[in-house]
Amino acid sequence: MATLYMKPHWTPKSAYANPHFSPKTSIFFLHHNHHHRQKPPSSPAIRCAALSSRRPEYIPNRIPDPNYVRIFDTTLRDGEQSPGATMTSDEKIEIARQLAKLGVDIIEAGFPAASADDLEAVKMIAKEVGNAVDEEGYVPVICGLARCNERDITKSWEAVRFAKRPRIHTFIATSEIHMQHKLKMTKEQVIEKATTMVKFARSLGCDDVEFSPEDAGRSDRQFLYQILGEVIKAGATTLNIPDTVGYTVPNEFGQLIADIKANTTGIENVIISTHCQNDLGLSTANTIAGICAGARQAEVTINGIGERAGNASLEEVVMTLKCRGEQILGGLYTGISTRHIVMASKMVAEYSGLVVQPHKAIVGANAFAHESGIHQDGMLKHKSTYEIMAPEDIGLFRSNESGIVLGKLSGRHALKTRLFEIGFELDDKELDDIFWRFKAVAEKKKNISDDDLIALMSDEIFQPPIVWSLRDLQVTSGTLGLSTATVKLVHADGEEQIACAVGTGPVDSAYKAVDMIVKVPVTLLEYSMSAVTEGIDAIATTRVLIREDDNHTSHALTGETVYRTFSGTGAEMDIVVSSVRAYINALNKMLGFRKHSATASQSQVLEKLA
Amino acid sequence: MATLYMKPHWTPKSAYANPHFSPKTSIFFLHHNHHHRQKPPSSPAIRCAALSSRRPEYIPNRIPDPNYVRIFDTTLRDGEQSPGATMTSDEKIEIARQLAKLGVDIIEAGFPAASADDLEAVKMIAKEVGNAVDEEGYVPVICGLARCNERDITKSWEAVRFAKRPRIHTFIATSEIHMQHKLKMTKEQVIEKATTMVKFARSLGCDDVEFSPEDAGRSDRQFLYQILGEVIKAGATTLNIPDTVGYTVPNEFGQLIADIKANTTGIENVIISTHCQNDLGLSTANTIAGICAGARQAEVTINGIGERAGNASLEEVVMTLKCRGEQILGGLYTGISTRHIVMASKMVAEYSGLVVQPHKAIVGANAFAHESGIHQDGMLKHKSTYEIMAPEDIGLFRSNESGIVLGKLSGRHALKTRLFEIGFELDDKELDDIFWRFKAVAEKKKNISDDDLIALMSDEIFQPPIVWSLRDLQVTSGTLGLSTATVKLVHADGEEQIACAVGTGPVDSAYKAVDMIVKVPVTLLEYSMSAVTEGIDAIATTRVLIREDDNHTSHALTGETVYRTFSGTGAEMDIVVSSVRAYINALNKMLGFRKHSATASQSQVLEKLA
Repeated sequence: MATLYMKPHWTPKSAYANPHFSPKTSIFFLHHNHHHRQKPPSSPAIRCAALSSRRPEYIPNRIPDPNYVRIFDTTLRDGEQSPGATMTSDEKIEIARQLAKLGVDIIEAGFPAASADDLEAVKMIAKEVGNAVDEEGYVPVICGLARCNERDITKSWEAVRFAKRPRIHTFIATSEIHMQHKLKMTKEQVIEKATTMVKFARSLGCDDVEFSPEDAGRSDRQFLYQILGEVIKAGATTLNIPDTVGYTVPNEFGQLIADIKANTTGIENVIISTHCQNDLGLSTANTIAGICAGARQAEVTINGIGERAGNASLEEVVMTLKCRGEQILGGLYTGISTRHIVMASKMVAEYSGLVVQPHKAIVGANAFAHESGIHQDGMLKHKSTYEIMAPEDIGLFRSNESGIVLGKLSGRHALKTRLFEIGFELDDKELDDIFWRFKAVAEKKKNISDDDLIALMSDEIFQPPIVWSLRDLQVTSGTLGLSTATVKLVHADGEEQIACAVGTGPVDSAYKAVDMIVKVPVTLLEYSMSAVTEGIDAIATTRVLIREDDNHTSHALTGETVYRTFSGTGAEMDIVVSSVRAYINALNKMLGFRKHSATASQSQVLEKLA
Repeated sequence: MATLYMKPHWTPKSAYANPHFSPKTSIFFLHHNHHHRQKPPSSPAIRCAALSSRRPEYIPNRIPDPNYVRIFDTTLRDGEQSPGATMTSDEKIEIARQLAKLGVDIIEAGFPAASADDLEAVKMIAKEVGNAVDEEGYVPVICGLARCNERDITKSWEAVRFAKRPRIHTFIATSEIHMQHKLKMTKEQVIEKATTMVKFARSLGCDDVEFSPEDAGRSDRQFLYQILGEVIKAGATTLNIPDTVGYTVPNEFGQLIADIKANTTGIENVIISTHCQNDLGLSTANTIAGICAGARQAEVTINGIGERAGNASLEEVVMTLKCRGEQILGGLYTGISTRHIVMASKMVAEYSGLVVQPHKAIVGANAFAHESGIHQDGMLKHKSTYEIMAPEDIGLFRSNESGIVLGKLSGRHALKTRLFEIGFELDDKELDDIFWRFKAVAEKKKNISDDDLIALMSDEIFQPPIVWSLRDLQVTSGTLGLSTATVKLVHADGEEQIACAVGTGPVDSAYKAVDMIVKVPVTLLEYSMSAVTEGIDAIATTRVLIREDDNHTSHALTGETVYRTFSGTGAEMDIVVSSVRAYINALNKMLGFRKHSATASQSQVLEKLA
């Protein structure tokens, strides 16, 4: 099942949802695949320490190099818990592949006990990404979350055991308030439960077990040292210290790690890990403080996504260590290949629907925007006057450096070449499909930029299995009359249906016409659109989020009612057509998921904590 | 000129540009004006320290209470330097009023030497906001930036001197690389220039002078102590230490402040200030570290906006001090009235066009999203299990708690009452205008939510002086035919013009028709749209950013060519009408600015550094 070939169907649409994605300084990113590794364009002045190739051997409870910091990415588990960030299995696998390119040490792929879908996604990631050993012997650990009960741990093992390096991550609350109100257990019962379950995980054959005392920051210190010492004896190999409510300040969190290191029996035989929430905007600093105090694993997410204000972001923690590790932080370093950061960021923003603000550190659209000014200012030849890292370090290249412009006279070969350069490797069938749409755009628009191409590619290639597709659309609207839309949809079985509807505007009427054909009650939760490139003749990308009204489940951790939401995107020069494409895309995703869920429904019934 | 009355025309449109602004947990915010101060709805459990009312007396170079930290907001100066964040004078004054409500100690209102417009905006803020002394004697210091030359300092004084408490902030580079390549000056010349200019500022009658050694973090330490000592002797009252490239880590920046405090002659007679950029995501932590090391002024921006990755954000620094000041940070506190944070955040996001990501700490749409789950979960009565501050602390109230729903049968009184409750106080003429549009929407949409009302209000009330307005629009488009639009615009002088155009989509054709009438060549830089509320019959808000092709100036600090950009928004149920309204709004802003610039053009010619 394992394959090194990466399908180039990544969709960076939401890059453009950012209103400050300025076409003048627009970017593209190389899609490195293992078949054909491309050299990034000139990387003039890398001031940050060069990528370290000295990743130490992986041993669960020990790192041969004391300066090496493991990066544990939980975008697919903690990140996916953000409101509205539900991802499909395909999207999760895409992200896991990208995380492997980044070289993260551990991928927390999900919470297998949450649902049959979650289990399946973790299993698929374990099988494919967890077995794709590269030429240097690197392969990410695949980790599954589990509460401290046999069912969760069994499910987790069922999913991760297919990986070359499987890990089970189990947790239980250790603060007074949680134990009393949530668990209704005494301290002794909590210790007993934790140690029994760590032993149980080891007994399944998993020799890499992580334990987290939930709400560690507010737990009684002596009790914390005690329970951590006991789970080490029981066989835990990593101890993760979460700052669950995200309100510690750096010195305080560093002290917590230092205290645990100083007072826990057997701590020298395990790895200490940090997991910092960002409620006060201090998560990156807290993570660095924790590492300086002795932690050697940092739990992070791409773009810092996660519940509430999210988690420490991978790119900030990694770039801080890369830029200041040698000079200030005693030689600390990670194994991350930072040039894949931009692509990972755009992918996660797209799939999670959580946009990145223009002034986000490292990956925001403006983070390197200063540079254009410097280039123009002949006086400042010394880029280091303002910059601390080169855009190339994180995989950011400017499209206007390439000098290639496609237009209506460009042929299939030119298109294929350019697409390959910006990261899409197509087979002939795929090229046929995209070429037709490329020509349609080129008829109307003089220069086709890389951004236009990426929008088209995303719209074309990353599609859910098609149930309905748009054949024709016709709208009349304005301030004077009644908005009317006529749509013709084709079902996967070939049947064509036509409907017309009147609405408050062109999109309202078109969506109503679609509803008349599809006949599944849904609620439109969000609708947004942005132009991909400068100029009014640009391609507009629409993103919608819908919810099926009659279909909901329970949240595995909190028991809340949860509606599955489905996002869809569409790209076209006509905003109404773009809107309808996005809607049909979301409907197709929902209809596909429905079919899949129906077959797996028995296992979706969730047990409560034992 | 000073008035305590605040016109209620704030436009929180971009709140909805966030695709994760979920209507289910949608929020509103009270607009407190000085005429009629409203009590916020029930504020059940404030766990952070209560607002301190003990703001010490303002003395430029000394703070009577050693634990008090001054908040210096530079949203209007540093924040406005972000790409595309140009604000109009009206928008700047609105923000300055809101900053005064927040109770910031110092408002850096702009860079008066940059242009006649900038000078005028700072002057207006100094006259109005800088004189609005409240019942407790509070009035913000109004500060203007100036390079170290007589012209800049004179211009700055010309603008700020109308305030009750004026301040001039002057700066010069002190790092080897800057002095050599940018200034082409020796160390001695730089000291001479700095001291002469601080004396010059004092000689104008300004007894509150701030000095910043640009790129302090990379300056030679001994030289830094020396120049700081000399400017203190020359009369500087605040010394600001910028981390210009944003790459220090907290302990390092804290050490820099501690070293300056320990080694600079006369430092005990001035206030030390921090100014941290966010390139590695550490700006809040660096600011806190600087304060802990002895700084007593923090330079921050709302939402952390600014060039590249922006600055330390006001809300994060203030809430960290508020939540942890007593317990962990030795009793440090600020004078900020935190319940105005949400409104300030939305206002700045709207006016600067810099969106806030959903997982932004404190002010992101998801920052408090967890709460709904807790409410549903009967088991968790103890909110403190998960929360560290109450949404009410920052001025966040949930609209679904109000229970008021307006519909098509609602009368003028009900509308007026609801608008007042959510912060808009209208006179009869304004109520007439909005009532008409309210009824038009209510005809088509069953329930009108607070979000709908805010979108309509924003579209209606906060308009630039009208040059052109939309009378009628008619469009036909789709996959089958040629998109055609007909528009009828009315000029301010009453003349009506009609044009029709063919384009690649309905918006393209409508904008082309508008261009045929307006006849000013512009480039559309950005276009985005989002639905205000759930459901397809929602109001769509469009935001565009345009640039006049033949009109540009030079950046005052770097000499780069800068095009002025103008944003416009429109709200309508029909997305094409909404798009056209936004475009005309931006054109009106541009045409108004043009007219104003033409009269002030002589003074816009910028001198280079002397």
